[in-house]
Amino acid sequence: MDTATVSPLDKLHGFYFEELEIGQSDTYTRKVTESDILVFAGVSGDTNPVHLNHEFASETMFEGCIAHGLLTASYISTVIGTQLPGPGCIYVGQNLKFRAPVKAGDEVTAKATIVEKIDDKRFVIIKTECLVGDKVVLDGEATIMVPTKGA
Amino acid sequence: MDTATVSPLDKLHGFYFEELEIGQSDTYTRKVTESDILVFAGVSGDTNPVHLNHEFASETMFEGCIAHGLLTASYISTVIGTQLPGPGCIYVGQNLKFRAPVKAGDEVTAKATIVEKIDDKRFVIIKTECLVGDKVVLDGEATIMVPTKGA
Amino acid sequence: MDTATVSPLDKLHGFYFEELEIGQSDTYTRKVTESDILVFAGVSGDTNPVHLNHEFASETMFEGCIAHGLLTASYISTVIGTQLPGPGCIYVGQNLKFRAPVKAGDEVTAKATIVEKIDDKRFVIIKTECLVGDKVVLDGEATIMVPTKGA
Amino acid sequence: MDTATVSPLDKLHGFYFEELEIGQSDTYTRKVTESDILVFAGVSGDTNPVHLNHEFASETMFEGCIAHGLLTASYISTVIGTQLPGPGCIYVGQNLKFRAPVKAGDEVTAKATIVEKIDDKRFVIIKTECLVGDKVVLDGEATIMVPTKGA
Repeated sequence: MDTATVSPLDKLHGFYFEELEIGQSDTYTRKVTESDILVFAGVSGDTNPVHLNHEFASETMFEGCIAHGLLTASYISTVIGTQLPGPGCIYVGQNLKFRAPVKAGDEVTAKATIVEKIDDKRFVIIKTECLVGDKVVLDGEATIMVPTKGA
Repeated sequence: MDTATVSPLDKLHGFYFEELEIGQSDTYTRKVTESDILVFAGVSGDTNPVHLNHEFASETMFEGCIAHGLLTASYISTVIGTQLPGPGCIYVGQNLKFRAPVKAGDEVTAKATIVEKIDDKRFVIIKTECLVGDKVVLDGEATIMVPTKGA
Repeated sequence: MDTATVSPLDKLHGFYFEELEIGQSDTYTRKVTESDILVFAGVSGDTNPVHLNHEFASETMFEGCIAHGLLTASYISTVIGTQLPGPGCIYVGQNLKFRAPVKAGDEVTAKATIVEKIDDKRFVIIKTECLVGDKVVLDGEATIMVPTKGA
Repeated sequence: MDTATVSPLDKLHGFYFEELEIGQSDTYTRKVTESDILVFAGVSGDTNPVHLNHEFASETMFEGCIAHGLLTASYISTVIGTQLPGPGCIYVGQNLKFRAPVKAGDEVTAKATIVEKIDDKRFVIIKTECLVGDKVVLDGEATIMVPTKGA
């Protein structure tokens, strides 16, 4: 995990709009644990038994507990907010399609790829995908406002 | 917070597709704390200094630390996953538009309202809004698959 | 919560040994939530059902879920580590006696009072108590090493 | 992590007093992450910069951020509360001596060993140690009340 919290301020800033190019990408990888699922249930309040109750979850189509979809989605926020474009950018929108369940023990890679730049608004459109191995478990698109060097 | 974790199994299940009507709505309200922001930074890995570093954040347009957008969004998951439709439903998709920043101390109400039923797929479309007071800080739409009683 | 994370470094340091006096005290108050109990279960791995499973817990002498004893104890660490003596001190030891259960909704006040100074080791002995209303739910004693101004 | 949350109730109970013998021991091992430290800071409120602020922490004798002592201690609670004696036991007291710092990336093994049985009170005294490799980073003693089969 990035330790941006503690770096000198001038090193904290991410990419500026001028520095970003279509095709640029970055990733964040994290293994989901049962701990993470409990912590996410606590911080969100989402105690849906499909996430916490093995007996209930084993009778669903998932045949066991699954991670919260927004826990997986939060890794997209991590790539965008800490790496590409990184600190200084503003989250305008995010579309999410949940493609497959994620379970404790799965290693998720969130990948962000710049697919469009909208100059007059200083927006970048970022394709966002989460993968477990080769399988896309979550995809969608982020709209991000990025500061210019001049601003 | 709902304590669904511990209820007898037959009481855990949420609404079935047949029971849902257009216009039906429910809410989940939670005050965001600095603790929640730290916990969310930990569980997601998103240590963007705009969330954690008051000195950095005070120089942004937000003039102080803000909550992660996906923390606010997670309250939508809480309404949907624990109340309407509740346990048993499957998250298919979620669109999010971040309208305004949320800060520690803000009380957020996530509201879910059923706006469409798609019978052949057993999908419901849910309008999802998060409010602080009267201000919409986040809105969007969820697509949810809901089991039928027959199934 | 203290936002020490972000203050300029020279303002971060707590009390020095010379500045501490017997009888000096400080407190930290926090309402325990079900969320906190889930988060603590996740971060510690302590999923004892007396904390998480209302059905199990209702059949114990506590007649319901209780907070982890070390969650309550962590508030002592908060007073000591952020207020008295504050940043810079080193935790040498802590004795804990769990006197009464703490449940979600209880407001806990952790109180630290300096009861002894051991000059040659630069140790202070701190009486540590957690209260819910007038009831002592946890007490004990901390041994803390505190830097001197000269060092 | 134990998934006691979800097991049928009759399988949840841990050891009874009669079943415990001096010398019996069990362990819980967990790698501490920066995430865990952030989450613990949030849930406890202990934002001491020695845990969160790399710049501050690098100038201390620890030469970098360290985990909260009570995070390490919480793994003792995990062994005791989920394994030995496990669910049903009551935490009466815990002494802690912090021997060495724990940092993100360290794998901590918490070990609980029964060293004494006090029949009339149904107490067991448990030696509690946390190790990183061969190094004892935390030790102490727990006093636990354990139900009898008859009770």
